[in-house]
Amino acid sequence: MTTFTEQAPGVAEQMPAAAEGFTLNHTMVRIKAPERSLHFYTHVFGMRLLRKLDFPEMQFTLYFLTQLSPEDSIPEDPDERTVWTFSQRGLLELTHNWGSEDDPELSYHNGNADPKGYGHIGFNVPDLESAETWFDDMNVEFIKRPDAGKMKNVIFVKDPDGYWIEVIQAELMAGVGS
Amino acid sequence: MTTFTEQAPGVAEQMPAAAEGFTLNHTMVRIKAPERSLHFYTHVFGMRLLRKLDFPEMQFTLYFLTQLSPEDSIPEDPDERTVWTFSQRGLLELTHNWGSEDDPELSYHNGNADPKGYGHIGFNVPDLESAETWFDDMNVEFIKRPDAGKMKNVIFVKDPDGYWIEVIQAELMAGVGS
Repeated sequence: MTTFTEQAPGVAEQMPAAAEGFTLNHTMVRIKAPERSLHFYTHVFGMRLLRKLDFPEMQFTLYFLTQLSPEDSIPEDPDERTVWTFSQRGLLELTHNWGSEDDPELSYHNGNADPKGYGHIGFNVPDLESAETWFDDMNVEFIKRPDAGKMKNVIFVKDPDGYWIEVIQAELMAGVGS
Repeated sequence: MTTFTEQAPGVAEQMPAAAEGFTLNHTMVRIKAPERSLHFYTHVFGMRLLRKLDFPEMQFTLYFLTQLSPEDSIPEDPDERTVWTFSQRGLLELTHNWGSEDDPELSYHNGNADPKGYGHIGFNVPDLESAETWFDDMNVEFIKRPDAGKMKNVIFVKDPDGYWIEVIQAELMAGVGS
């Protein structure tokens, strides 16, 4: 294991023993309408629904999604699948508060207009040009195409709730920043 | 590879070939003051700074963090490290717009008060009780302790900007939801 650490004020020199084994499991955003969001993330972005958890008492449902690796083997037993899901890294959790899809007043805030905060999730893709064509085929709304603006080779699209999604091809990012 | 898919309206039956190899690389949130955020995420949550990218022309810096696995080997060459970073899964990206730390008017919106949208990031930890003690030792602000509210065995804390962080122990989540 390389212990290389980039220099920046505030960065811990050593991993504290108490934080050993902590892993970033998921990012949660609220969605208005699960069917359109599940279609978008499973179809357009190739994610798989790992676990759907209903909480009838509190009137909400959680959907956990990820891209699978060939080595992934998902347990069939529901409780084992829950534990497995919470043991993964880098999942997307979509929260649906029941009835939100029927509320004409409700739309979620994407964090990129005031008041700002949350920005986006970002996907790495094998080929940025093919991805751009695919998003056009799927009528995905673009915020920014690869050749627009100052950040070349970076796509931004909107998900069905208007949340921003960055799309990059890792190999094309060499040389960005300093 | 198990092809088990949970049932829900909207979920794709088959992964579209065009989305093959897409992976969720990162989640981005804006931070006001990098030193306190880097201390928090590297010290309290045991993350490592993989890449710091400065964009002087646009006056911002990006910080990419993750927990490392023993098998991870980070390239020493800066450009290779950038490509490697964008090839990972489940990173946290912190965006610092230069000077925000000196703006007394600025605080970021965490998405959990109106207007709602983004919710939180969630960490899996090996032992929830030890984690609670550790957060107390580190003077982390709790939103919810494990025995409070309807969702037992779930901790919520705040990061330095007030963003919510969920903390769970995967094994204790068996049986939640339906």
